Amino acid sequence: MTEDIYEKIMTLAKRRGFIYPSFEIYGGIAGFYDYGPLGAQLKQNIENLWRRFYLLNDTCVEISTPTITVSEVLKASGHVEEFTDLTVDCKACKRAFKAEDLLTDDTLSVEEALKEKKLKCPTCGKAFTEAYPTNLMFSTSIGAGEGRKAFLRPETAQGVFTNFHFLYRYNRERLPFGVIQVGRGYRNEISPRQGTLRQREFSMAEAEIFFDPKYKTHHLFDLVKKTKIHLFDNEKEFTISLDDAVKKQVINNQALAYYMYLTHEFLLAAGVDQKKFRFRKHASDELAHYATECWDAELYSERFGWIECVGIADRSAYDLQAHITASGTDMYAIRKFDEPKVVEQKKIVPKMDVLGPLFKGNAGKIKTLLETMAVTDSLKKLTVVLDGKTVEIPKNCYDIILVKETVSGEKFVPHVIEPSYGIDRVLYFVLEHNFVETTKKDEEYRMLQLKPAVAPVKVGVFPLVNNEELSSLGKQIDADLRDAEIISYYDACAGIIAISAVPITPQPVVSLWHGGK
Amino acid sequence: MTEDIYEKIMTLAKRRGFIYPSFEIYGGIAGFYDYGPLGAQLKQNIENLWRRFYLLNDTCVEISTPTITVSEVLKASGHVEEFTDLTVDCKACKRAFKAEDLLTDDTLSVEEALKEKKLKCPTCGKAFTEAYPTNLMFSTSIGAGEGRKAFLRPETAQGVFTNFHFLYRYNRERLPFGVIQVGRGYRNEISPRQGTLRQREFSMAEAEIFFDPKYKTHHLFDLVKKTKIHLFDNEKEFTISLDDAVKKQVINNQALAYYMYLTHEFLLAAGVDQKKFRFRKHASDELAHYATECWDAELYSERFGWIECVGIADRSAYDLQAHITASGTDMYAIRKFDEPKVVEQKKIVPKMDVLGPLFKGNAGKIKTLLETMAVTDSLKKLTVVLDGKTVEIPKNCYDIILVKETVSGEKFVPHVIEPSYGIDRVLYFVLEHNFVETTKKDEEYRMLQLKPAVAPVKVGVFPLVNNEELSSLGKQIDADLRDAEIISYYDACAGIIAISAVPITPQPVVSLWHGGK
Repeated sequence: MTEDIYEKIMTLAKRRGFIYPSFEIYGGIAGFYDYGPLGAQLKQNIENLWRRFYLLNDTCVEISTPTITVSEVLKASGHVEEFTDLTVDCKACKRAFKAEDLLTDDTLSVEEALKEKKLKCPTCGKAFTEAYPTNLMFSTSIGAGEGRKAFLRPETAQGVFTNFHFLYRYNRERLPFGVIQVGRGYRNEISPRQGTLRQREFSMAEAEIFFDPKYKTHHLFDLVKKTKIHLFDNEKEFTISLDDAVKKQVINNQALAYYMYLTHEFLLAAGVDQKKFRFRKHASDELAHYATECWDAELYSERFGWIECVGIADRSAYDLQAHITASGTDMYAIRKFDEPKVVEQKKIVPKMDVLGPLFKGNAGKIKTLLETMAVTDSLKKLTVVLDGKTVEIPKNCYDIILVKETVSGEKFVPHVIEPSYGIDRVLYFVLEHNFVETTKKDEEYRMLQLKPAVAPVKVGVFPLVNNEELSSLGKQIDADLRDAEIISYYDACAGIIAISAVPITPQPVVSLWHGGK
Repeated sequence: MTEDIYEKIMTLAKRRGFIYPSFEIYGGIAGFYDYGPLGAQLKQNIENLWRRFYLLNDTCVEISTPTITVSEVLKASGHVEEFTDLTVDCKACKRAFKAEDLLTDDTLSVEEALKEKKLKCPTCGKAFTEAYPTNLMFSTSIGAGEGRKAFLRPETAQGVFTNFHFLYRYNRERLPFGVIQVGRGYRNEISPRQGTLRQREFSMAEAEIFFDPKYKTHHLFDLVKKTKIHLFDNEKEFTISLDDAVKKQVINNQALAYYMYLTHEFLLAAGVDQKKFRFRKHASDELAHYATECWDAELYSERFGWIECVGIADRSAYDLQAHITASGTDMYAIRKFDEPKVVEQKKIVPKMDVLGPLFKGNAGKIKTLLETMAVTDSLKKLTVVLDGKTVEIPKNCYDIILVKETVSGEKFVPHVIEPSYGIDRVLYFVLEHNFVETTKKDEEYRMLQLKPAVAPVKVGVFPLVNNEELSSLGKQIDADLRDAEIISYYDACAGIIAISAVPITPQPVVSLWHGGK
């Protein structure tokens, strides 16, 4: 037996219609997979189980935004600049590689390996001398001719952030509240490895929970704080209660800890093996450009080792602030005072008669930016960011006046805690952690013992005997189950097939619908 | 009151979080829409109701394939050539228009209007002299550097067709069987009009039902054949039973008629007004390149008139044949004989020792194509299609021999009946057909009376009185409902809001969750 677990699972997954490479009839291409009848249903069940946790239990709301995203959004969010991988080109072999994939020495960075000529072409062996960043977004263009530059979204999150002011009003201007999105994300990998774990088009489930930064708490934390979770801080693994983790500042805040708890519960409910589960903290040099703290839910694969399946990040005010700056939209929240206060403060009063002729189409945006700007004593010159460029606003464009105002609250930019799930990865681990091999009467069986909540088919109906009365009764049971919205599987030939299973399928899979405990 | 119904609905839709233009904070762009919390839920409910009809009731299976599609698939399917709109460019105004949108005289074709100089720029009034076809697919590239050419799928159907051989085996090589896909589709409109009805990125629900062309029937047809449907043949409207429509050949076959019935039932269940519903037959000059017959389910809008929301097409063997020809994959089905037959037939025997050196990488594909080719007496020269080009195969590459074979069945290319739903359009009509205006105590109310099956929120929980005991009870009821997977809406302030509704929202919407009958 030379197949490893990944190969066994992919053989089963293809034969049984779970998952297999796309476009095979045209030669295929790495990083794209089709979900067959059982796989698509399993994926949908995992997504709907996830919704139970976030939409129903955590009372988030769900939105749905386009996958095509105009470039302005992703420029503001930092993805145009930062969503890159270092790439090396072998001119001899005419192939590009992700530099990190070619590191053979764990202690070296890409830069160091290049300097020491230890980063080599896996085909011809030539050492590379330079690497350059490649943006990982798929790009396209909207409209006829040159059109408007756009990308396929690298995450669903930006669709939520650009809607924040609507959603805040929808929630009657109260914090915290959560917004989820489930859908496709895209990442144009340079040379994807790791099979179904590294897809170029994948399914994500993301929640963006907006908090007042002064209160990063969760109203249900007290109920769950004694739950123990298994952590890895990149040095040692240890088990700790949520409460202790927050008190000892292993986890920065209650809100982050609560969503780690929810992630833990969801993954176990989906059928992940608790013994192959840990949370790993991102080291400061691996944090994404938007994150101040991030914990990965890692699952253990016999083939791939520990793999990130969920990232729970504190994105702080990063994204909302970026969109406020780039678009000039008022995306602040208000922290109401108990009593209205009379305050004396400096305010900028833009002069539209000067701004207008000087900045034309941008004048309105500049006006909004100036009016919401805090005036500190240290302010020497006024700058705003327009289309990614810092622009100084001349002194004759505004007055600074001292006003006495009755204010009922103060503006602030909410913080975001984001649990982000890679659904395809979760699905793969549900398969690997529930894959069972056994022998019965000297025949080898390979089985999936899936939890009923995620199993693609809930009930099998087999008359077994070729008999008109029984098969008509069987069909009626199948139809009744379907009427009750239970997906059943009727097969009049199942009995006959089972007998002849050995020659047709060397390792027959039984009880695909056999639920776990 | 100058707002028309579309404006009223879009005002309500934006304020209440149903649907509104995307990327507004960056100036927006035509053809992209965000679904807010109520809209996303409504859309999901419509999709899940649709699954009740196709997945549960009609026992189709569901698959899920990538939106990014390699160009080979769409070249074979004809979309690279045929999925186009005639475009005109105004060089003075530097704008492109869809030629059809500028036709002012219904009796003229685009070509005729151009000749008669009656096709004019809507901005500067200059008459256009020529129009050219523009492909409507969004294009992108996979991988680093130049990469591999790909498109965003214009329909989910091709993901099903390229999987046919898997799916046929999955269904134990029996016909008919159906495969559905629900997901995003893309169409890079030149200059989209009609608001949410013409989106560049949209949600589709498509079913591909594979039939033996000799038996385009449905096993449930007898149960429903007396149902009357309302048809429009482009000349007159009339009501007819499904049975009569098939007998009189108004509708070509039982299978097509059955899926028209299912479409009718689904749309009524979703809340469409039966009085604003008809099926319109495509005239022969408007059929898509793949269709032999097509009926549109059209819904009537007070703003837009009759609009296609579903197309039920007979795609015949078009797509499977195209992929067999282009990829050389065996995507045939087998019609088993009652008894095995001994037949004498001519067969092509490829000579790999000649084909190999001559055609190199393509030799294997040519071998498969030749072996499955029917040899008729009229055959003069042998040609195959390689990468879209017809290539002649020299005589020395093969022998034609006469063989006596015992065959258990005959190969054929299955036919496809395809009901294809535009989910965003269905959703818009659910809003328009259930929009109610009324007056109560001199106050104007605008309401949506949605069917419970699709309503985004099923239950509202409002304590109404500001009282600790009542609000804690209310919260418990809300939590219990959510535990039972019923989406509820809890609002402690609802009573107070209701009282102050007039100044906040000039036309308050009540009973969003008020179900129809």
